[in-house]
This record gives sequence, C-alpha cells and structure tokens, in this order.
Amino acid sequence: MHDFITGGAGFIGSTLVDRALSHGHTVTVYDNFSTGIPEYLENAKRQPGFRLVTGDVLDAGKLASSMAGCDRVFHLAANADVRFGTDHPEKDLRQNTIATFNVLEAMRRNAVREIVFSSTGSVYGESTVIPTPEDAPFPVQTSLYGASKLAGEGLIEAYAEGFGFRTWIFRFVSIVGERYPHGHVFDFFKQLRTHPGYLDVLGNGHQKKSYLYVLDCIDAIFTALEKARDPVNIFNLGTDEYCEVNDSIRWICDYLGLDPEIRYTGGDRGWIGDNPFIFLDCRKMHSLGWAPRYTIREGIIRTLRFLEENPWVLERR
Amino acid sequence: MHDFITGGAGFIGSTLVDRALSHGHTVTVYDNFSTGIPEYLENAKRQPGFRLVTGDVLDAGKLASSMAGCDRVFHLAANADVRFGTDHPEKDLRQNTIATFNVLEAMRRNAVREIVFSSTGSVYGESTVIPTPEDAPFPVQTSLYGASKLAGEGLIEAYAEGFGFRTWIFRFVSIVGERYPHGHVFDFFKQLRTHPGYLDVLGNGHQKKSYLYVLDCIDAIFTALEKARDPVNIFNLGTDEYCEVNDSIRWICDYLGLDPEIRYTGGDRGWIGDNPFIFLDCRKMHSLGWAPRYTIREGIIRTLRFLEENPWVLERR
Repeated sequence: MHDFITGGAGFIGSTLVDRALSHGHTVTVYDNFSTGIPEYLENAKRQPGFRLVTGDVLDAGKLASSMAGCDRVFHLAANADVRFGTDHPEKDLRQNTIATFNVLEAMRRNAVREIVFSSTGSVYGESTVIPTPEDAPFPVQTSLYGASKLAGEGLIEAYAEGFGFRTWIFRFVSIVGERYPHGHVFDFFKQLRTHPGYLDVLGNGHQKKSYLYVLDCIDAIFTALEKARDPVNIFNLGTDEYCEVNDSIRWICDYLGLDPEIRYTGGDRGWIGDNPFIFLDCRKMHSLGWAPRYTIREGIIRTLRFLEENPWVLERR
Repeated sequence: MHDFITGGAGFIGSTLVDRALSHGHTVTVYDNFSTGIPEYLENAKRQPGFRLVTGDVLDAGKLASSMAGCDRVFHLAANADVRFGTDHPEKDLRQNTIATFNVLEAMRRNAVREIVFSSTGSVYGESTVIPTPEDAPFPVQTSLYGASKLAGEGLIEAYAEGFGFRTWIFRFVSIVGERYPHGHVFDFFKQLRTHPGYLDVLGNGHQKKSYLYVLDCIDAIFTALEKARDPVNIFNLGTDEYCEVNDSIRWICDYLGLDPEIRYTGGDRGWIGDNPFIFLDCRKMHSLGWAPRYTIREGIIRTLRFLEENPWVLERR
C-alpha cells in the first residue's frame, strides 16, 4: 500500500504519516510547508518507505506527477483556520475547494480511486440538532471555512458517483495532542507564558466545544478504512462530551499552577461565524467498534505537556 | 431599485428581466452569450431602464465594475447542464462555484448586499425523503452540477453570516415554458421533427421528475423577495406533482398527433448521476401564499407551442 498524504507535514498529517509507516505502508508526503513543520517528519525521514515532495496542492501539474504509483490519497492539506475567513475569503476557496478539485483530478489522471478527506464539524453551521449526527438537517453555512469544506465534500461525493471513487469523509471536532500547532490551547498557553497574571479570552467563555485527542482520531480513521466499505463513507469524529471554554481554562490554569485574571471580550461567540455549541453525535463511528481512549481534559493536558517540552513550536507563529 | 441580473439573456434570466422591468426597476443584464440568446432581450432593449453588459462572470474585474450602482443581484449565470458534468469536471467548478464567488466579491466591492441565487433540487442528491423538504437530511452529492451549486449556496450563506448579506436561494426543479432552450422537451420535440416515426429515450422512461412553468417560477421569486426577510431564505420551487418521462412523452406525442416507436436505452437513470426520482416539498413556498397556476402538462404544452412558433431556437444547438 502506497499512501499519498497531502498536508503530511502538519499536525494531524504527520501523525498519520507515522502510523501509516508503522503499518508498513509506503508513504509520499506532499506539503508546501506553508504551515507544515519539517521537524514533525524527522521520524518519518528515517524510514525506508518514506518520500517527501515539497509542493503546493494548487500546482496541479506537480501534484499529479507526484501522485504516480500511489494507491490511496489522504487529503489533509487545507487552510485549517476557521477564524479569519472573512479577512481573506479567497483563501478558503483556493486552499480548500479548488485544492480538493486538483487532488481529485490528479487521482483521475493516476487512476487512484480511494480518498480520505479531513472535513469538519463546521459544515453543520449552527445545527438545530445537538449532538449533531451525520444526517442532520440540511445545514446552513456560517463560515467560509465550513462552506469551503462542504464544497470539498460535495466534489468528492460527485467523483465517487461519476468516476467510481471510494471515499472516507471525516467531520472532525477540534483535534488536540502532541504536535498541536494552533488553536485555543496554544493561544492560552502562549499568553500565560508571556503574562501569567491575566488571560484574554474571546467571547464570554461559555462557548461549548468538543475536542478529540489526535491518536484517537488516527485510530478512528484506520478503523473506518478497514470496516466501512461503501462508495461514500461519512463519519463524525469527536468525543461523547463537550466542555465550555471556561472548563478548558480551568484545566490549563490548574496544570500550570496559575490563577490569572480572566478578561473576556464578551458576547456568546469568539468571532464572526464562531459556533457557540459544537457537539457531534459519533454513534456511527462507535458502531464500528471505535471509542476514544482519552477525555477532552486528558487531551488538553497532553497538549500542554507537548508545548512545554517543545517551546520552539510556540515561536513559529 | 436597480437589479443586476447575471445570465439575464438566458431562459429564466430574460423572463426575470422582463418582469423586473415591468415593475419599473432599472435592470443591468450581465451575460457572456455563451448560452444566452440575444433575441430574448428584444423586448427589454426597448425599455428605458435597461442596460446590457456583455461580460463573463469569470472576468472578476469587469463583473465588479459593471455592478456599480446596483441594489440587488440575481445570480442566474451558470453551467445549467447537469448531464455532461463528468465530460469536463472543471466546467461546473468554474462556471458555478468560482463564478458565484466572483459575484459575491463584486457585491462586497460595491456594497450590494442582496442576492437571489438559482440553485437546484439536484443539491439533494438521491434524498431518502420524498417529497424532499428544504431541511432534508444532509445530502450526499451525486453530480458535479449539484456539488457546484451546493458550493455556491454555502458561499452565499457564509457571506450572509460574515458580511451581513441577505439572500434568497431557490432550489428549482426543471423549468419549462416560453424561451425554454434545452432539456428533454426540447430534445424530444427536435427528434420528432427529424424522425416522426421513432423517439430515442435515455433510461427506461420511468424516471420521475417534476417541472415548473417559468412564469410560476418568476411569481414565486418575487413573492419570496417581498415576504421572506430572514438573512438566509431558502425555498424549494416546484409543483405538487411529478410525472414519469413516459407521461411527458405521451403528452408531447398527443399534442403533436404522433405515435412514434419509443426506443429506450434502458436502465433506471438516463445518465451517470441522473436522479431517478426528483420531487420537492414546496410547502414552505406555499406558506407565503404562492401556488403554481399551471400543471406540468400545461407547462410542457406551452413549451411545445413556443418551440413550434420559434423553430430558430431548435437550430441553435
């Protein structure tokens, strides 16, 4: 098995690379290192079955030629930043929707027919059903990020129907754990290193979110690849719990032994398009025998431990 | 009110143009005439409030400069051909998804904040719920056309949330009536003019579809514009009946006084991605006081009458 992994130098991507290599697969990583981190591939580079291509998914020609000989694609390259979509609307369109089209066309040219796609719970917008199942009512998009990922899902599904592709689409909650490179745990940890006496928090702290530990996420992906064999396989990926931002703040401060003043910007959401309550119904994934082994709190503490041990990650942004 | 109508030289677009002019609106049509028909604007050109710009929605600069001074956009320009998506996958992406992005960006530049969008029942894929309501279960796309329109919907919704736009998204069944320029009635009529003795039919004739008469469609759009004032207003637009392709064949042959041999290609769908049963639940639109005044059969007969009186339309393709 030769896996082609776009965004393979990223947080989730590089963790997936290590797992695929440990399964004895050959792995080609395709990454432009715009947010990918070379150090995350240090272990992979020592494996004989590993190949690295520095390239952009918007470079359709290089993408297609690099995919020659591969059996399966994990398409993880993306603009993964839900928050700043309105600052540059074209970024989500290009890096998520058009990039996914390029991946699908490269697959067609190389007769590769299996694609794993990292989508997001953001495609549900502000669902009327919580916890939100995969067949929730037809969603209304609230972010450019969600809209661009939904567009990617739709393209992949149409290729499955039109060209006989098989796909596994995963709608993630936020992922935490080792190699975590951005998000609220990162921001809060970085703030508290700079000024332990106070913490600036977007919104009122009552936004409810769900988080999944990265190794649980990778376990789920490989479980679904093995056990779900429909042409189109769509799975929510999260934990069966959610927390408030305030819970997360408490866990972080307890771990660090700090008692900062919390300064809220106010309002029930952190930014335009922020969803004040994300909680996915993951029973479909559970039905395959998968369950997360780590709680949200444990995932966040492992993230903090990683950031403490790798302070160089904090300096990258 | 100054309306900007992309695809305004098309079937539905030009009918909308005439209606908007009859309401006393100023109208700018923006059309590249790739499928638009100049003759459809002959009436409009005689009105003082009419302005025509020959331009492509993929020319973002011209699109934005042409929109200056407008109050509202009707975005109808599209690749409206659901059938040949797999022949050229990039066409739907460019002409539907990227084009819609260009329209939204042109609106931002010109501070235009209201957009009417012609979407399609194809976004439901093969829904598990029939008749299919607007909040049907999260759909799986089965055509590149549907996927590209879903992507357009998502972009518009994200702009509504992110930039304070207001939108009316209409998910059409197939539209028939005067100025109808392509589709099964067109194909069958054209075939029977050439060879009255037989008719080639894609599939087995049992595909179930719904059709709406174009003036009923225009009535619905203006009813919704007046009465639905949420930031995001989504409406199915169809009739409360469906027919089999075989019913349509019978109506067409009866009207023409022909009894051809029907030669089916076979199979339960006409082409890859063809949905064998499209029937939309239009109660949301009815709740605004709108109801179609014409049956499917009446709409098809009016289409035939138009084609008989305008044989030049048949020679265009």
